[in-house]
Amino acid sequence: MGKKRVMTPAKDVDLSSTKYKREVVQAPHLTGFVFRLFVRIIEAPLIGPIIMNILKKENKMDEILRHTVIPEEPMFKPEYPPQEMEPGVVVLEEDGRPEDRVESALKCLPHYDVAELWENSSASFRYWKIRDYAHAYRSRKVTPSMVAERIISIIEDNGRNKPPTPLLISFDAAEVREQAAASTQRFEAGNPLSILDGIFMAIKDDIDCYPHPSKGATTWMHEVRTVKEDAVCVSRLRTCGVIFIGKANMHELGMGTTGNNPNYGTTRNPHAPDRYTGGSSSGPAAIVASGLCSAALGTDGGGSVRIPSSLCGVVGFKTTYGRTSMEGSLCDSGTVEIIGPIASTVEDVLLVYSAMLGASPANRISLKPSPPCLPSLSSNDNSNALGSLRIGKYTPWFNDVHSTEISDKCDEALNLLSKAHGCEMIEIVIPELLEMRTAHVVSIGSECLCSLNPDCEDGKGVNLTYDTRTSLALFRSFTAADYVAAQCIRRRSMYYHLEIFKKVDVIVTPTTGMTAPIIPPSALKSGETDMQTTGNGLASPLGYYSLMICSAAL
Amino acid sequence: MGKKRVMTPAKDVDLSSTKYKREVVQAPHLTGFVFRLFVRIIEAPLIGPIIMNILKKENKMDEILRHTVIPEEPMFKPEYPPQEMEPGVVVLEEDGRPEDRVESALKCLPHYDVAELWENSSASFRYWKIRDYAHAYRSRKVTPSMVAERIISIIEDNGRNKPPTPLLISFDAAEVREQAAASTQRFEAGNPLSILDGIFMAIKDDIDCYPHPSKGATTWMHEVRTVKEDAVCVSRLRTCGVIFIGKANMHELGMGTTGNNPNYGTTRNPHAPDRYTGGSSSGPAAIVASGLCSAALGTDGGGSVRIPSSLCGVVGFKTTYGRTSMEGSLCDSGTVEIIGPIASTVEDVLLVYSAMLGASPANRISLKPSPPCLPSLSSNDNSNALGSLRIGKYTPWFNDVHSTEISDKCDEALNLLSKAHGCEMIEIVIPELLEMRTAHVVSIGSECLCSLNPDCEDGKGVNLTYDTRTSLALFRSFTAADYVAAQCIRRRSMYYHLEIFKKVDVIVTPTTGMTAPIIPPSALKSGETDMQTTGNGLASPLGYYSLMICSAAL
Repeated sequence: MGKKRVMTPAKDVDLSSTKYKREVVQAPHLTGFVFRLFVRIIEAPLIGPIIMNILKKENKMDEILRHTVIPEEPMFKPEYPPQEMEPGVVVLEEDGRPEDRVESALKCLPHYDVAELWENSSASFRYWKIRDYAHAYRSRKVTPSMVAERIISIIEDNGRNKPPTPLLISFDAAEVREQAAASTQRFEAGNPLSILDGIFMAIKDDIDCYPHPSKGATTWMHEVRTVKEDAVCVSRLRTCGVIFIGKANMHELGMGTTGNNPNYGTTRNPHAPDRYTGGSSSGPAAIVASGLCSAALGTDGGGSVRIPSSLCGVVGFKTTYGRTSMEGSLCDSGTVEIIGPIASTVEDVLLVYSAMLGASPANRISLKPSPPCLPSLSSNDNSNALGSLRIGKYTPWFNDVHSTEISDKCDEALNLLSKAHGCEMIEIVIPELLEMRTAHVVSIGSECLCSLNPDCEDGKGVNLTYDTRTSLALFRSFTAADYVAAQCIRRRSMYYHLEIFKKVDVIVTPTTGMTAPIIPPSALKSGETDMQTTGNGLASPLGYYSLMICSAAL
Repeated sequence: MGKKRVMTPAKDVDLSSTKYKREVVQAPHLTGFVFRLFVRIIEAPLIGPIIMNILKKENKMDEILRHTVIPEEPMFKPEYPPQEMEPGVVVLEEDGRPEDRVESALKCLPHYDVAELWENSSASFRYWKIRDYAHAYRSRKVTPSMVAERIISIIEDNGRNKPPTPLLISFDAAEVREQAAASTQRFEAGNPLSILDGIFMAIKDDIDCYPHPSKGATTWMHEVRTVKEDAVCVSRLRTCGVIFIGKANMHELGMGTTGNNPNYGTTRNPHAPDRYTGGSSSGPAAIVASGLCSAALGTDGGGSVRIPSSLCGVVGFKTTYGRTSMEGSLCDSGTVEIIGPIASTVEDVLLVYSAMLGASPANRISLKPSPPCLPSLSSNDNSNALGSLRIGKYTPWFNDVHSTEISDKCDEALNLLSKAHGCEMIEIVIPELLEMRTAHVVSIGSECLCSLNPDCEDGKGVNLTYDTRTSLALFRSFTAADYVAAQCIRRRSMYYHLEIFKKVDVIVTPTTGMTAPIIPPSALKSGETDMQTTGNGLASPLGYYSLMICSAAL
């Protein structure tokens, strides 16, 4: 009795009275034998559900999902009313040829004199941008085949590391040489397909890239699911001449934020090999951060592109849900997960994104996304595109990080934006963050479990890592009514954000609340469960936004 | 091991090889003490879930939802691509005034000479149509106040029955008199609001009709939820001058198909008082069938308008999901349930529907329904609207009824249509009916449980009927992943039906597989659980269609 809580309709909530509350995820941090024992217990028929219920109670999940009257009706996908076109943008044809979209994107970029930079640069290291490669290929200084040989030798060297720290789960040197030779030939014939021709990319192991298998970093997924063609996004990039080096390492099935991987080895952070890359797109981020490829594709449903990009110091873009097609990926049945690019610069993210975008036929009917568009940043255009930006910041949340170093650095970046471009900073309030986090984990977990259930029930579940099994045990405890309640929260959140976006153009947060964690040696063999680190440090600001319209972590 | 089943993508399924399988719901039929004991057991912490799992296994629910790879992505609401306008229809303005829509609808009707009929009719009983009342009021033969007095005296007489067989749960004679007086005055002033002015209607107890409470036939709902205004549909009807006689009886919370009601008494079938009316909109159907009101509003998520209309011999219309706003009803958070009219003729259903229709703001964004339209049946129009109809029939399913009397009668009606109007009969195949039924019960059950959870967890659950508690115990056993899987099935079903509707204009089935069941005297006090009757006889063809685009039971 007395458990019931009634929410005020979102439109009547007084935001000025909203107090920020730091909500800490309550869960044990386990590795080694204790962890393996814990997993056996939570998978046991009677005691398992009891433990899960305690865990959920500690984290107020039942209070939010079962004891609360949520006046909003459910919203199952991030829906939004028709949007007005912003001024000064270039519209891309969703149905057009990817090469044409890349061409349009290229015209949006500021002037860049590669030759001059090359002559005058004194930097000891610098990521080559796509425009650097493009210039090198077109001026015949370098061929894609020459680059391919360098990449192949580095990957083969890396494969001899002890302990193994693989960047790729599937790699075939001959196949890379073949793609590079075809690209080289196109340049020799003077017919490159686009600015992306000869650009090397890695694809996360949960996105199909023919002829590689898609294992999702499991030991068995390729046995039950055959790859017959490229995923839609990959195929669009291939049309532009991109060369794929193979399938990048990841947290098993994307169900974790560290990148820990007992099956194929844990990818190390290129900036500090004793530290995690972050996950789940660990391989894609590390491959870009190490300078091996210009870009990579990851998937992101709760930070899986943004977290490793942040911890590896590169640029990750969680595309708006529905902007990219999920066809041909392991997570094609969800309402939060997307495919997004990782690159060393915003510019390269923009080029890759323009090639791969385009909603699925189903989402074109249900979400009717407005036409995709890019800001015009070219020097021909005199408008100060950044200057008109209104930046929204929820300060207590912004500062809720493990070390003030992080928020201070982020503040520095904001001040720079403000000074250099005159962006306006606006203080905002985002209510119900804990509710959003809860709704997010229920949504992504249930959608993930749904697609894994047939194989798990068929006996494959015990061949997953202990970390994944811990997540699945939690996801199994969600009821169908919990799922519906989570979608009612989604409608509230969407309402709040549409209101906020009337006042600001972007919301800024640190991408992660902590820097790359050290890899506990005891976690290498059978992984670890560390929902506290995931929930409080790594995924904290991100899960919320995976529910929402859009979000980018730059 | 070996449990896994993989579905062929819907677009590749060979329908010609589909075999009809009669699937019988496996569940005990219980009343009295045994029933009450059963409910206590299934609500118990450890044994309850085990029994539910057995029940679900018997009915192949886990096989369908957990062991099957469904290649389609989930579809959470009945979405459909933009529709082409049919020829010869009259478009109604969704945003316009309800009175104007009713006026447009009136023009669609065939010529009807009330005065002539009245003079020449020798029938001993005949339902008065809305146009009969309209003529009577306008020719000053009768006033709404005169009709009100007749209705009030019948309801008051009926209230003295032993045992009570109430048609209404909430009734206030003074309030009815007041509405009738206002309408009478409008006629006296020569200013009726529309053809619906002075028309009497009853509203199911789960739809708000101010100042009545909405109990949903529970003993406590009005204590936790206050009615402050009319539901949107009711308010639109009120604008047209409709007089509401009160809140009609129903199966508690709409969770049953018989209309059994231990809280307020079970409404009896006007054609046979020892039989059920069918449910859940038992009161609305009985009130119309007894000639007391011209029309009533019910709610329907799995047959709740169609079943009682069928068993009581009147016309019930399950509107397409999203056509009517659910705002102000107890079931405003679902993806299948709608508000629909019941009347004695198709014509009256059409008039009431035209007044009450109009999608909610949320559904206008997510479903973007095409403009509502009506067939033009007026004699000024020479087109044979019915003649061009292509009627789809899945014969083995059509004939899968308790008594061939039912299918024979339905066949007769079809032959009549064919002969009189030249409608074409086309044999169709509808695959995966069991899967659809499963997806339906998971969807409606979970959505219903979600909105009841806060009160149930707050201690109100034990004050529900044993019947409702049985349903809730089943619904609690559905996992979030089951819910997502059910939505994947929804996308398959939608695909099949869009394909079928390329070939036919309507699909015909008997509305119910049986005639009105006799009320077991032992079921009057504490109800009964009879999922077999519900699943095999009453709701059999209907639940499927509640998932889908549209359906009508005439």
